[in-house]
Amino acid sequence: MGKEIKKVVLAYSGGLDTSVILKWIAKTYDCEVVTLTADLGQEEDLDGVDEKALRTGATRAYVEDLREEFARDFIFPMMRACAIYEGRYLLGTSIARPLITRRLVEIAHAEGAQAVAHGATGKGNDQVRFELASAALDPSLKVIAPWREWDFRSRTDLLNFAAENDIPVISAGNRKLYSMDRNMLHCSFEGGELEDPWNEPGPGSYIMAVPVEQAPDEPEYITIDFEKGNAVAINGQAMSPAAIIKTLNTLGGKHGVGRLDMVENRFVGMKSRGVYETPGGTVLHAAHRDLEGICLDREALHLRDSLIPRYAAAVYNGFWYSPEREALQALVDKTQENVTGTVRVKLYKGNVVPVGRKSPYSLYRMDLATFEEDEVYNQADAAGFIRLNSLRIQGYGRRS
Amino acid sequence: MGKEIKKVVLAYSGGLDTSVILKWIAKTYDCEVVTLTADLGQEEDLDGVDEKALRTGATRAYVEDLREEFARDFIFPMMRACAIYEGRYLLGTSIARPLITRRLVEIAHAEGAQAVAHGATGKGNDQVRFELASAALDPSLKVIAPWREWDFRSRTDLLNFAAENDIPVISAGNRKLYSMDRNMLHCSFEGGELEDPWNEPGPGSYIMAVPVEQAPDEPEYITIDFEKGNAVAINGQAMSPAAIIKTLNTLGGKHGVGRLDMVENRFVGMKSRGVYETPGGTVLHAAHRDLEGICLDREALHLRDSLIPRYAAAVYNGFWYSPEREALQALVDKTQENVTGTVRVKLYKGNVVPVGRKSPYSLYRMDLATFEEDEVYNQADAAGFIRLNSLRIQGYGRRS
Amino acid sequence: MGKEIKKVVLAYSGGLDTSVILKWIAKTYDCEVVTLTADLGQEEDLDGVDEKALRTGATRAYVEDLREEFARDFIFPMMRACAIYEGRYLLGTSIARPLITRRLVEIAHAEGAQAVAHGATGKGNDQVRFELASAALDPSLKVIAPWREWDFRSRTDLLNFAAENDIPVISAGNRKLYSMDRNMLHCSFEGGELEDPWNEPGPGSYIMAVPVEQAPDEPEYITIDFEKGNAVAINGQAMSPAAIIKTLNTLGGKHGVGRLDMVENRFVGMKSRGVYETPGGTVLHAAHRDLEGICLDREALHLRDSLIPRYAAAVYNGFWYSPEREALQALVDKTQENVTGTVRVKLYKGNVVPVGRKSPYSLYRMDLATFEEDEVYNQADAAGFIRLNSLRIQGYGRRS
Amino acid sequence: MGKEIKKVVLAYSGGLDTSVILKWIAKTYDCEVVTLTADLGQEEDLDGVDEKALRTGATRAYVEDLREEFARDFIFPMMRACAIYEGRYLLGTSIARPLITRRLVEIAHAEGAQAVAHGATGKGNDQVRFELASAALDPSLKVIAPWREWDFRSRTDLLNFAAENDIPVISAGNRKLYSMDRNMLHCSFEGGELEDPWNEPGPGSYIMAVPVEQAPDEPEYITIDFEKGNAVAINGQAMSPAAIIKTLNTLGGKHGVGRLDMVENRFVGMKSRGVYETPGGTVLHAAHRDLEGICLDREALHLRDSLIPRYAAAVYNGFWYSPEREALQALVDKTQENVTGTVRVKLYKGNVVPVGRKSPYSLYRMDLATFEEDEVYNQADAAGFIRLNSLRIQGYGRRS
Repeated sequence: MGKEIKKVVLAYSGGLDTSVILKWIAKTYDCEVVTLTADLGQEEDLDGVDEKALRTGATRAYVEDLREEFARDFIFPMMRACAIYEGRYLLGTSIARPLITRRLVEIAHAEGAQAVAHGATGKGNDQVRFELASAALDPSLKVIAPWREWDFRSRTDLLNFAAENDIPVISAGNRKLYSMDRNMLHCSFEGGELEDPWNEPGPGSYIMAVPVEQAPDEPEYITIDFEKGNAVAINGQAMSPAAIIKTLNTLGGKHGVGRLDMVENRFVGMKSRGVYETPGGTVLHAAHRDLEGICLDREALHLRDSLIPRYAAAVYNGFWYSPEREALQALVDKTQENVTGTVRVKLYKGNVVPVGRKSPYSLYRMDLATFEEDEVYNQADAAGFIRLNSLRIQGYGRRS
Repeated sequence: MGKEIKKVVLAYSGGLDTSVILKWIAKTYDCEVVTLTADLGQEEDLDGVDEKALRTGATRAYVEDLREEFARDFIFPMMRACAIYEGRYLLGTSIARPLITRRLVEIAHAEGAQAVAHGATGKGNDQVRFELASAALDPSLKVIAPWREWDFRSRTDLLNFAAENDIPVISAGNRKLYSMDRNMLHCSFEGGELEDPWNEPGPGSYIMAVPVEQAPDEPEYITIDFEKGNAVAINGQAMSPAAIIKTLNTLGGKHGVGRLDMVENRFVGMKSRGVYETPGGTVLHAAHRDLEGICLDREALHLRDSLIPRYAAAVYNGFWYSPEREALQALVDKTQENVTGTVRVKLYKGNVVPVGRKSPYSLYRMDLATFEEDEVYNQADAAGFIRLNSLRIQGYGRRS
Repeated sequence: MGKEIKKVVLAYSGGLDTSVILKWIAKTYDCEVVTLTADLGQEEDLDGVDEKALRTGATRAYVEDLREEFARDFIFPMMRACAIYEGRYLLGTSIARPLITRRLVEIAHAEGAQAVAHGATGKGNDQVRFELASAALDPSLKVIAPWREWDFRSRTDLLNFAAENDIPVISAGNRKLYSMDRNMLHCSFEGGELEDPWNEPGPGSYIMAVPVEQAPDEPEYITIDFEKGNAVAINGQAMSPAAIIKTLNTLGGKHGVGRLDMVENRFVGMKSRGVYETPGGTVLHAAHRDLEGICLDREALHLRDSLIPRYAAAVYNGFWYSPEREALQALVDKTQENVTGTVRVKLYKGNVVPVGRKSPYSLYRMDLATFEEDEVYNQADAAGFIRLNSLRIQGYGRRS
Repeated sequence: MGKEIKKVVLAYSGGLDTSVILKWIAKTYDCEVVTLTADLGQEEDLDGVDEKALRTGATRAYVEDLREEFARDFIFPMMRACAIYEGRYLLGTSIARPLITRRLVEIAHAEGAQAVAHGATGKGNDQVRFELASAALDPSLKVIAPWREWDFRSRTDLLNFAAENDIPVISAGNRKLYSMDRNMLHCSFEGGELEDPWNEPGPGSYIMAVPVEQAPDEPEYITIDFEKGNAVAINGQAMSPAAIIKTLNTLGGKHGVGRLDMVENRFVGMKSRGVYETPGGTVLHAAHRDLEGICLDREALHLRDSLIPRYAAAVYNGFWYSPEREALQALVDKTQENVTGTVRVKLYKGNVVPVGRKSPYSLYRMDLATFEEDEVYNQADAAGFIRLNSLRIQGYGRRS
């Protein structure tokens, strides 16, 4: 607690906010600041971001490509769980935080820093995710959250501070309409006209996917191969996890797939309205669930489905590094052992339609499903099955 | 058990199968057969179905319009629960069985019949649903399930029996490609090329909704008003439950909404592949969940979501009249007390996109969600919130 | 927030801590203090507590008997739910807080007070329970929590403050060994030698129940009658809810029943060790669950059981007035409609043994349970039942 | 299905029923019968049981000691899950069936048999457990269940058959009062006066534990050491799993521990009343849960607790070899990684009281739990924690 802060590792994007934060921390704590800029597939040009950090006062600037790690160790385990928050949200922002925090902590250890810092505000979920992950990984590290600490009360305050400290500011003309967060899995939009949940999102809220109206008039069919619940190939071509996501983003985005507009419940207690684009993740989620249709046993599926809200809340609330998320993951991964096969998906005008699925471990038996007689299933068995199942409710309905 | 069968009430559609069953029961049990043909919104012409039943040997033929009851007492309670089976199926077939069975049992009581009968086969879920509902409503009634009892082994056997017994047969040219079930909520397709899950469904599997490719090039915006979780008006016009479903079917169907192709798990133990069209139900489900976004408390929502698989399985498996479904309904209905408001939905090329929502009971607070300071939420509180939440996992991640 | 505090309603026990708090609030906030002392069955003499409050500076002192309300509206609904925290704890402290808070808020409204106050410390669950209940009942009321606000650092500081302010102090000789909380349902013990979980609780931790070693050598049989899940009579004698609890405390306590020693998880993030005596509640819980054995349907029971951890956490964490607790209660109460009947219980040396149970709604059928043939259950049905149940796992075990 | 039965492997106890079954199968199917008699710790003398089988017509008689396997691979995994059926039953009978069945199937493979056979009746759970396990392990094996097949209608029929076939019958004087099942984990009693749930169990229902009235007047303290959720030593002495159970049976039984009288819900649809003695298992269960109190994280514990009903139902219903049980086990075992330590338990007059617990992985922190100030926990944090937790329910209680 009382430990002196001599060096801080900051999650740094190169934008105005984290540049101000960099300088503010250096001055306020009178300490060194080391920056980490991670490529998580946000499709921003990171060339020169290290020089910018150094110019703004950083003593060292890490720029790292974490895309494969992000896809393999975070997105894919979550996809195996069919995680979806409040029935709709694919958790694109939530899932990036534990990875960034892990690198912050690792760099803090390597650099001998006493604290990590982030640019998340005091009302959102991201501060929670950063700080819970940090506490789980190293509770002795302090977390600096300037948005909760400083006295700036408006954007003007920030701009003034930037001007006073020679921090370059992108011209106001380019100012974003929304508060956005983007990575390989999704892009989120908040604020602006979205603050009134009755307003329809405007055209500025499209980046990763075209509006459905502009999608091609011809459907496109693709196949996705899975092994143990993980996508491994598209159209028969084997790919790394990050390449899978990237390719599906291109395909899904082209067809206007994966857009969501919802009011969700934040962990910090209020509701907020967001628009999300998750083109590749949406395709992957749909194909994965469809393959489970033939590979997963009924009771294992129902059990897992009943736990999706719990798993998704753990990720959303920032408890990636937690006993409950890991216990749930163990259950999920056990169910995925045979989720291996191929799904054929039709993409068209915002629709993701699985139209065929096959698997070497398919539990679907054409001989059983048919309406003809067969050797395995004796229809007379159904009478006994039904009678014993009815035993406990006999006469129950009379009361209703 | 040994009670003599003198009169049977049969669920009768007027088609070949139930006509053969009518005659077969009358002959096999040497008894009277009373028929019930229910209008559940299947959009078939029921004119003359009573005469047909009488001509085939029925001693009395009930033809009843149950559409409002179906929508109000069965579809709507299920929709309030956001019920969805195995993540995708809106339970269109399942939900019709308890109502038909209730009328069969009521007529059996009025007519002094000893048994009810249905035309469901021995491999499907419907036999279970009919018989569990019947046992719940009156365990003293016997259920006759000819498909499990007779010796017919093929369609030819049925046709021969029909010919021998002067049962009119629709010409072979009109024979259906699929085994279908239709009512106000949906139309299902099974069999034919669908038996191989790798095959894409053919063009014959479209009845209630146009193929997306043929949907209009212009989006259509509609509003749906809800009270306590039930839809009550469309585009500001108050409607009965059945009219709500019918209107949404027209709107959704026009835009190619609500089509599903999946392999599901039957209660009787095997997997089966089905294609479902649920245009109005899909719109209703999406709009309802969206309204819950602003009206439902977070924990109530997460709790309810974790129970959807259980509720849906109860409906799917035929336990509508059961203590567990009713207990779950009590929980669900408690959560819906304030789910009142309006959702604006965009329909376009198969997409159902809620784009605006409002409610007199909205829990969304624009003042809280904004990124500005406010009176209610003190950002400093977040630090304490996070620290106490982190307490139990401090250092946990080191093990991972 | 910034509202001026002119009057505060304080939960006042008459002990040192709340007396100091009373004076401290009056001085610190320069305001009136109104006290509420509630009789929740803690078996303390409340005579003169009002004068003591007035002498210590209160402007008005409420002393109220809330025992029936406590039993009927709080303990009994929780008992209907079979609530038990972390498999063992019957929630005796947790359940009292929402009632006290409700009265504090009601008195605040009647008195025109701007705040309520409690004497719970900053590390425990009780502060959370008081403050969540207060926020749920009236978020405009401020809550004053002196233990989190003042600068006292030790018991000596409190004693000094008491001495300086003429607050009478019970002689040190009587000082409690433990931090205790007592009401009609239980007595809890924390601190002292219990802080080391390896230490066995000492003899001072027995108040409501005799040590088992001192219990009578003769067993005692009692009957408890239930209606809709609520106990209504003991040994055939109808009683009010509070009298039920009190009588069972006497009976259970005499036989050394209902003692628990456990390490539990607090909502504020740490583990703590407590010893609990819940003699009457333990008897009631055991008898209630036993009656459910014959009155509750299997699936309703299993569903309810799976939700006990969620219900218990809601109560433990202070969310009595919450959508999730109320939704769960609706489910629970639906299941209890037929939990009506009588349980015969043997009390002996710490053991509570249900030895007989009967109900007009019993679902136990002697004819079915017997090993003889019967009319209702055809053993041949079991073959079909098993075969269909085996269908989905055929061959599964080969992989294990 | 139609496969000819030439050899059958029968689960054979040596008693009247399975002796009659042995002969009946040999005659009815005109086939060889191989017997398996397993020592699961039922404390019966198995000397000579092989000769008896051979004399009754078996062509080969296996007698096997499966006690270690039973304890290690079946009882212990179940204990790690804290499995308990309907809140009370420790599943002593259920857990033995999958092991016996696995050996039956293995012997069938070794012997080239076409079927396995069991002596369970047509109304109970055991037939289901045998047959589901058999189907999971080898669906091509037929299962013969004579109680569902033959025409014997009474015990007299069996005795007549025995007499006609020279099967030695134990004299009627020794006839059991109850239908019993015993193994290392428990002894169950059904039937007799127990069929009326209002009757108190008689003195004949005590075998493994003394009546509490006869237990010693002196308490006994023991310690149990656990590693990863498994008991490994008693009073500091390392033991094998079977020795652990056996030793705890002796200790618990001496003190009258582990008796249960309940009405439970069978999978086949009816309720039944049973009395169970589980002395060692009860001690183990109590000690294990107590150790979890200091070793298990709160959310992992609550999650696991919410799944106990599901896990227990899987075991009770016979789905040991199933995807859902194995997925749950994966979750459970993940939670048990640090459940390592020692519990001190007091045994006295039917009571099992954990009075001390310690662990190298203890998450209990005396510095946090104390009422004093500390370095880690800042009481001011609680204010923020509570305020954000209250946000979503502010004003909610006004509606109640």
